[in-house]
Amino acid sequence: MRFIGTQEIEDIAVGAALLGTGGGGDPYIGKLMAQQAINDNGPVELVTTDEINEEDVFVPTSMMGAPTVLVEKPPSGEESIRTFKELEKRLGTNIAATFPIEAGGINSMLPFVLAARLGLPVVDVDGMGRAFPEIQMTTFYLDGISATPMAIADEKGNLSLFETINNRWTERLSRSATVEMGGSTIVASYSMVGKQLKKSGVKNILHLEEKIGEVIRKTKHNTIDELLELTKGFQLFSGKIIDIERETRKGFTRGNVIIEGLLQNRGKDMKIQFQNEYLIAETNSNVLCVTPDLIAVLDSETGEPITTEGLKYGARCIVIGIPCDDKWRTDIGIQTCGPTYFGYDIKYQEVEKLNSNN
Amino acid sequence: MRFIGTQEIEDIAVGAALLGTGGGGDPYIGKLMAQQAINDNGPVELVTTDEINEEDVFVPTSMMGAPTVLVEKPPSGEESIRTFKELEKRLGTNIAATFPIEAGGINSMLPFVLAARLGLPVVDVDGMGRAFPEIQMTTFYLDGISATPMAIADEKGNLSLFETINNRWTERLSRSATVEMGGSTIVASYSMVGKQLKKSGVKNILHLEEKIGEVIRKTKHNTIDELLELTKGFQLFSGKIIDIERETRKGFTRGNVIIEGLLQNRGKDMKIQFQNEYLIAETNSNVLCVTPDLIAVLDSETGEPITTEGLKYGARCIVIGIPCDDKWRTDIGIQTCGPTYFGYDIKYQEVEKLNSNN
Repeated sequence: MRFIGTQEIEDIAVGAALLGTGGGGDPYIGKLMAQQAINDNGPVELVTTDEINEEDVFVPTSMMGAPTVLVEKPPSGEESIRTFKELEKRLGTNIAATFPIEAGGINSMLPFVLAARLGLPVVDVDGMGRAFPEIQMTTFYLDGISATPMAIADEKGNLSLFETINNRWTERLSRSATVEMGGSTIVASYSMVGKQLKKSGVKNILHLEEKIGEVIRKTKHNTIDELLELTKGFQLFSGKIIDIERETRKGFTRGNVIIEGLLQNRGKDMKIQFQNEYLIAETNSNVLCVTPDLIAVLDSETGEPITTEGLKYGARCIVIGIPCDDKWRTDIGIQTCGPTYFGYDIKYQEVEKLNSNN
Repeated sequence: MRFIGTQEIEDIAVGAALLGTGGGGDPYIGKLMAQQAINDNGPVELVTTDEINEEDVFVPTSMMGAPTVLVEKPPSGEESIRTFKELEKRLGTNIAATFPIEAGGINSMLPFVLAARLGLPVVDVDGMGRAFPEIQMTTFYLDGISATPMAIADEKGNLSLFETINNRWTERLSRSATVEMGGSTIVASYSMVGKQLKKSGVKNILHLEEKIGEVIRKTKHNTIDELLELTKGFQLFSGKIIDIERETRKGFTRGNVIIEGLLQNRGKDMKIQFQNEYLIAETNSNVLCVTPDLIAVLDSETGEPITTEGLKYGARCIVIGIPCDDKWRTDIGIQTCGPTYFGYDIKYQEVEKLNSNN
């Protein structure tokens, strides 16, 4: 157990945005929200899964919807509290602690905002080890844990609760409610006991995010090399953004970005397709990284991660690929969030294999 | 207090379909469902608002969505029970009895199905005295009673609960959930205590429906005249259906029907516009009946009401207009469900005035 203050938040937000693979929200807004909550209420207790009680109930808090929308209407923090009170009433028990559902500039931060305000600990675990766009895309789902009862709230004061027959229905119903509620909502879902969280979560993810943030903040010259070492990743491409197609539709930010190669990649283009998160990175000739492996786009100068809504014409960037958690590299994992699920006619291959010559 | 058996159901279903003004569902399906439930569980106690306890909690059960869809997937009855159990848990109290939210072939019958299965009484009251397409279009809303907490369930086993800041938001969120759930759902909403129900409901509506059904069943020759006397209505038109435009969109059945005049109306056409319910009846020259007043289309031979989904090319029919409950004839009543709300550039005038020469 240790305490997370505003400096730790600074690093975790940046590392989370990197592992958020373009989704999960802007780290700047997430950071400000968490730092404000910690300034108001004091540091937040961070516990490992080894330190939690197996019978206690744990619930993640997260944002659902298009990050492009969230930037325009950041949550107040009240939404999370209302969803937690609703689930506690529903479950007939207190929630012992919260944790992030996924990595991401916003979604790794919201648990700290809520924890600071309610005086709860945060558990160092998440349900993806990255970010994904749909409710059922969690390592909890792979182990049969239901996302419902699920409470969602908007900033206006509306609240919906869902009890569904499976997580696909949860996704459908909560997505359409999110669209109606203005494109982004705050969600409490996947309530589970400590024993389940230990078995099915991706552990020590906040620790990794903090290390990544620290490297980006401290390292001046060989940031990318240090990041690759820390994440066991690969540099996929280096270049300049020359085209962005992006639209917010049905509650998602969808599109693709074209990067023109510079330096060792001169003469090539890289195309990255995204749906909230970066999903496929390929050059004219080769697929280089495929979901569920992680794709991150980093600012060439600072190493800071660039989210899909932060992509800007002319920006110089480096694209890296990172192996996903092993839980995703199973048949059900690939079915749930491999390229076929997202509609791409590409077979999943591990980023290590696709880049074995690097 | 009296008991409602299968014969009473026969009449109530037909009368309810007439007051349902084309919406509220097919009386044949509704009747079969209620009769089956009464055959299985015995007659249902019907009480007047004078006989209820002012502190008890009452909740209507109803179908939401397009009646055209409901015909293809009739509810099993389990949906109503699940929504009631959900609201009881939510409210922390037992529900003393149920009642119809509106008049309609299905929506006046669902309370009997549920009441028979749960052994509850039905109260002789509803929230419209007719049928309307949207959640906030109730006399309860006019008195500031909230539709939420509202539970909605589909036939697959999914359930949503809504807590909203106003009834317009309830309409938006539950409508989009209904569309996702396949176009029709079962709803429990507008929970209230007996005192509120007495004040804000349209009383003795089931009694009127039964009388209407009895006239249609028993009277052989002057059915229309007897119906007009019973409902204080006006015959608006007599003719043959020559055109129907109908589409199911955004959870509603929308369209219009053209009726070519026969007998005293020869040489004229009547156009009726509908959105689940008939809303505007007009001939080439005159508007003859406007929402919230009631428009019913009756089979010329039998006097049986024809719902919007039952409209058939070539059918001979008589159109009647009936004054709505006085609660609707207020500023807020007309704002809530007058012609302007539905997008028609027509000013509301009472059906009595529009037909003062008849």
